[in-house]
Amino acid sequence: MTTTTWHRSHILSLADFTPAEYNTILQTAASFREVLSRRTKKVPALQGQVVANLFFESSTRTRSSFELAAKRLSADTLNFTPGTSSLTKGETILDTAKTYLAMGADMMVIRHREAGVPQAIALELDRLRSRVGVLNAGDGQHEHPSQALLDLFTICSLLDTDRPRLELLAGKKIAIVGDILHSRVARSNIWSLTASGAEVHLAAPPTLLPKLFAEYSHSSGQPNQKLFIHWQLEPALVNADFVMTLRLQKERMTQHLLPSLREYHRLFGITRDRLRLCQPEVKLLHPGPVNRGVEISSDLMDDPQFSLISQQVTSGVAVRMALLYLMGGGKA
Amino acid sequence: MTTTTWHRSHILSLADFTPAEYNTILQTAASFREVLSRRTKKVPALQGQVVANLFFESSTRTRSSFELAAKRLSADTLNFTPGTSSLTKGETILDTAKTYLAMGADMMVIRHREAGVPQAIALELDRLRSRVGVLNAGDGQHEHPSQALLDLFTICSLLDTDRPRLELLAGKKIAIVGDILHSRVARSNIWSLTASGAEVHLAAPPTLLPKLFAEYSHSSGQPNQKLFIHWQLEPALVNADFVMTLRLQKERMTQHLLPSLREYHRLFGITRDRLRLCQPEVKLLHPGPVNRGVEISSDLMDDPQFSLISQQVTSGVAVRMALLYLMGGGKA
Amino acid sequence: MTTTTWHRSHILSLADFTPAEYNTILQTAASFREVLSRRTKKVPALQGQVVANLFFESSTRTRSSFELAAKRLSADTLNFTPGTSSLTKGETILDTAKTYLAMGADMMVIRHREAGVPQAIALELDRLRSRVGVLNAGDGQHEHPSQALLDLFTICSLLDTDRPRLELLAGKKIAIVGDILHSRVARSNIWSLTASGAEVHLAAPPTLLPKLFAEYSHSSGQPNQKLFIHWQLEPALVNADFVMTLRLQKERMTQHLLPSLREYHRLFGITRDRLRLCQPEVKLLHPGPVNRGVEISSDLMDDPQFSLISQQVTSGVAVRMALLYLMGGGKA
Repeated sequence: MTTTTWHRSHILSLADFTPAEYNTILQTAASFREVLSRRTKKVPALQGQVVANLFFESSTRTRSSFELAAKRLSADTLNFTPGTSSLTKGETILDTAKTYLAMGADMMVIRHREAGVPQAIALELDRLRSRVGVLNAGDGQHEHPSQALLDLFTICSLLDTDRPRLELLAGKKIAIVGDILHSRVARSNIWSLTASGAEVHLAAPPTLLPKLFAEYSHSSGQPNQKLFIHWQLEPALVNADFVMTLRLQKERMTQHLLPSLREYHRLFGITRDRLRLCQPEVKLLHPGPVNRGVEISSDLMDDPQFSLISQQVTSGVAVRMALLYLMGGGKA
Repeated sequence: MTTTTWHRSHILSLADFTPAEYNTILQTAASFREVLSRRTKKVPALQGQVVANLFFESSTRTRSSFELAAKRLSADTLNFTPGTSSLTKGETILDTAKTYLAMGADMMVIRHREAGVPQAIALELDRLRSRVGVLNAGDGQHEHPSQALLDLFTICSLLDTDRPRLELLAGKKIAIVGDILHSRVARSNIWSLTASGAEVHLAAPPTLLPKLFAEYSHSSGQPNQKLFIHWQLEPALVNADFVMTLRLQKERMTQHLLPSLREYHRLFGITRDRLRLCQPEVKLLHPGPVNRGVEISSDLMDDPQFSLISQQVTSGVAVRMALLYLMGGGKA
Repeated sequence: MTTTTWHRSHILSLADFTPAEYNTILQTAASFREVLSRRTKKVPALQGQVVANLFFESSTRTRSSFELAAKRLSADTLNFTPGTSSLTKGETILDTAKTYLAMGADMMVIRHREAGVPQAIALELDRLRSRVGVLNAGDGQHEHPSQALLDLFTICSLLDTDRPRLELLAGKKIAIVGDILHSRVARSNIWSLTASGAEVHLAAPPTLLPKLFAEYSHSSGQPNQKLFIHWQLEPALVNADFVMTLRLQKERMTQHLLPSLREYHRLFGITRDRLRLCQPEVKLLHPGPVNRGVEISSDLMDDPQFSLISQQVTSGVAVRMALLYLMGGGKA
């Protein structure tokens, strides 16, 4: 592995990521994917360093992925989980982070149900002049950068295995289908995909995709020429190269945003029939866990001709290795 | 350690284990016991490999034993526990297993309260042409192979420390006492012990040991000449060389299968007095955790003259190292 | 690191610690602090050894500190937590400890809500002639030796970074403020601080600091000439060099030992104003987690001029490395 230039100490949002940064991550992840194909899937890059996983909102899947990424870089890991925490004892979240800082954590991976928590922790760590990097592993409805980056890596790797790079997506049509309003995954993906020059088509019922969403999606304030909003599924699917589905939270029903899962599936569920509207080579993504038969019909989910779901999980480890490696100073 | 021939990719049940397989495990475990007696109790056999412990049914004791076995082979471990799982989020068990497969797990240790889950996962992993091995760490009332193998190793090691082997049990009388009906431990032990040529005597109240049980215990359909059923304790104990007791679940009372723990102890509890019926050198086993004063009288449990309980726990680590090692390709 | 003479196999209480023992720990911790300042913060001292963290009472913060200390000594760790334990299955605490002994744990770090549990386990392990050391990580209202030792290390390091030693405290005035009655932290600190020749001033409301407490604080039965009791805050603070605050458990209100948190803060909370009574260089400690605005005013807690709270956390890892290292035979 070559030393790469990387200047970002925290990874909190993709809003201001440059194409060069995306490409550094994609290339670094590709080299780790190669490591993961060996029998001994481990490199000593972060030997003796400590990655603290502070999952205030629990997620076995994402935590396992980060934990494995850290271990494969030979880092030690510490897991903080809310059930056994001192948060119930009146400590603030910043106090918890400062405790792990004082213990000697070199990096913190943070998930919280409130938007902005990883950023608040990063600010505090910077104020204290620590050199500890914060990686946002999902904050409320804000962002989930590592998920969007693994989606990007999965797609770009499909287009060019050896040299995955942002430019491969220029001119591609990508549909994002589902509960866009509440989805941190969608928000991060919109940043990376529009940065790539792809055409991004959002499709959801109006309750889950308000019109004003489009305006919120631009840092420039200018409408994004590459972002399209649909309240029906079909126009988003027509000629799509990739279809990204989002997890539907069941509480959307009790919040009266949706009549039923069945109704949702009838209108926005991805089926074999509907995929005929897309490009013949279309591929399907989902951040998992899938509600089988809701976002995607069950047989389609398992069909390797269309589904990239398990490649996404595999990409997750390589991409998270790349992120920890770059944040950790990138010497291998 | 020498390279051993091992062809089984999953360890799900002992029903079709051959004497050669039992002996390979016993010998491999003996060599790991030697490793465990050194100051540095670690070998690099599984360096860089990942063992995922998927304990859908929680068990600190068994999980710790597997985790330690994996770490002493220098593997990395990932623990999945139900409390923080995405199972509550509508994902199926197979989806969870496939997620850990996609992350790069090399082996999966699976415990589930339903019989057949490890087998279903193994089938799915094979269907996907993964080379990931599944080890059943207890499935419902079906089997618990690693427990029976550690029991076997404990007994055979007592008979010949340096060369524990199946043949040592030929002609020995072994009593299995307790809730046979619901016990996956008993079921696995019956396979290994009858394979060894021992005489196996089951003793339990009729509610916990139906007559038809004997017939279910043979794959051939022929009554097993070495398996005997008793509804009283004494005939099972007479001249026994080993007495295996089973854990009594307290819910058997609320299910009206037992009047009380006290009544159970009065009729089937192992006491110093009752051991006089056995061979003078008789030894006592229990898979743990013991209900003191129920299955075994409390003082007897702690008496090193009779009790092999702590040897069983120690054997557990060596046997699980052997299983992971053999499944992992067996190069040390 | 040089080989140090250390004869204590368990660390259960500071009641009978000698000045030489305190100094060995302080020096060993200082050398580990140096290790922790390197990029690769790891030494192979306990390679292949297993540290079992048996936290019957859960504490993420203390467990993480011990886990990190163990990992930085290259030990493997096993975590036992009550939620998933077999204690609910009728096993005794000693049985649990014996299970981890039989699995091959080399050291046990034990926390329990009942006083005396670590000692009972240590006695049992000695009776069984194991050579496994027990480290009390907090037992009921009895002791919390590693916390007091990290407090001592923090203070002594401030007075002489390179050569922290007990004698530096002779003649210093140290106030301990708060719920002394229920505090295992206070109890351990009283032993170490009075052993150092410091003057120790306890301050709390009478309900949390009964008069007879003073008498209980001496093993000799003689009143300790260096220990003073106050039912008001001010006399404890006057000219103090260090102020140690204790965590206030909110259940003290429901137990009618305190009118309210606000009332407590008004009478015994440490504020910038009150610190003016102390030496100008006074420093503030708290074992964490802090109830902000109760034991200490929130701004003061974060003021690096006064607060040693984050140094305490950092010291914790170095001191726990020293304790595990010394118990483990001390070869580096």
